[in-house]
Amino acid sequence: MMKIQLALDRMEINEAIELTRKVEDSIDWIEVGTSLIKEFGMTSVREMKQAFPFKTIVADIKTIDNARYEFEMCFEAGADVATVMGLSPLVTIEACMEVAKRYNKLVMIDLLNTTEQQKRDLMKYKEAVFCEHVSKDQQEELGEANYGNITDSLYSPDMKVAAAGGIKLDSLDLLRKTLNPEILIIGSAITKAENPAEAAAKFKQVEAK
Amino acid sequence: MMKIQLALDRMEINEAIELTRKVEDSIDWIEVGTSLIKEFGMTSVREMKQAFPFKTIVADIKTIDNARYEFEMCFEAGADVATVMGLSPLVTIEACMEVAKRYNKLVMIDLLNTTEQQKRDLMKYKEAVFCEHVSKDQQEELGEANYGNITDSLYSPDMKVAAAGGIKLDSLDLLRKTLNPEILIIGSAITKAENPAEAAAKFKQVEAK
Repeated sequence: MMKIQLALDRMEINEAIELTRKVEDSIDWIEVGTSLIKEFGMTSVREMKQAFPFKTIVADIKTIDNARYEFEMCFEAGADVATVMGLSPLVTIEACMEVAKRYNKLVMIDLLNTTEQQKRDLMKYKEAVFCEHVSKDQQEELGEANYGNITDSLYSPDMKVAAAGGIKLDSLDLLRKTLNPEILIIGSAITKAENPAEAAAKFKQVEAK
Repeated sequence: MMKIQLALDRMEINEAIELTRKVEDSIDWIEVGTSLIKEFGMTSVREMKQAFPFKTIVADIKTIDNARYEFEMCFEAGADVATVMGLSPLVTIEACMEVAKRYNKLVMIDLLNTTEQQKRDLMKYKEAVFCEHVSKDQQEELGEANYGNITDSLYSPDMKVAAAGGIKLDSLDLLRKTLNPEILIIGSAITKAENPAEAAAKFKQVEAK
């Protein structure tokens, strides 16, 4: 069964909390989006954890340097998972893995814009969650949200894989056949839906199949 | 004459303001570090601009996606320059250039972990400032802060080049001979000095030569 990670971006913290209340029964993980962190700082992570203490909180901090400082900051603020860019120097990823292990938390490696070879080099961090990610800018500026060419051939069955970027209800069939991720990261398909609760419930229905 | 950009990281906003007051006569640009943005959000940029309205404020936001949103956020908060990762998809860099042009502000492209080929691909953004950057993690975990192998051969004389990462007073001679940057980004060599005012004054003395 897939998990659903609700990605909260481009909104105020209060809006994020209200929106999450409406859909919380249908989602598993809550992502405090990069835009919330860069606009409101760690307050965004702290307030989401306070509002949803029993949910897994993902801080999408997109670390690319200063790994120990940023990861400790996220975990101290209440995050259960924090993200690092796969494009970072490996020493940065290693520092993230070390901090996460110490806090008994998870690292999600964001594979945005990485090459096949870079992905292979990252496969040694077996305890991380690997996130295949079509960026917002690639979607919005180029209209690309193509997961068809991503396969799970890189990943061994015991690795955790996530997919993010413009995923809609009707992308799920293809995604299942190709990457078959354990974690589906859904943003605007829920947050911008006319009825977010209904949209989230539909995702849950499909992923429960 | 080189400009000095004071990089403020791993401190509270009040500390950053107090520290900058002590050294403001010796520095040109003020960088609100990534760690301040991720910890305190845009408040950090707003408060620095309010405290130093006549200085150039650099928001080291390290955009790698969601370019329009993040760059507009920085410029609305009072930043004069904002940073984007050279590792981003080019469509992200293009969006940053477009927003900066519209606001009559500057883009700094952070070349952290980019290859020679990636740098060449970025050279077309002639209005950007190019920042050669040895990451904190590479310095702290590997002890690397080597600018000896960076040369200015990629850059035409009309391009703006910056250097960042562990620069000390005694790095300047080599830096001048190799990259010869227009903007020197100095963090802990000033902020962690016993006497920051004196340390900043020494940098200013040397760069004025």
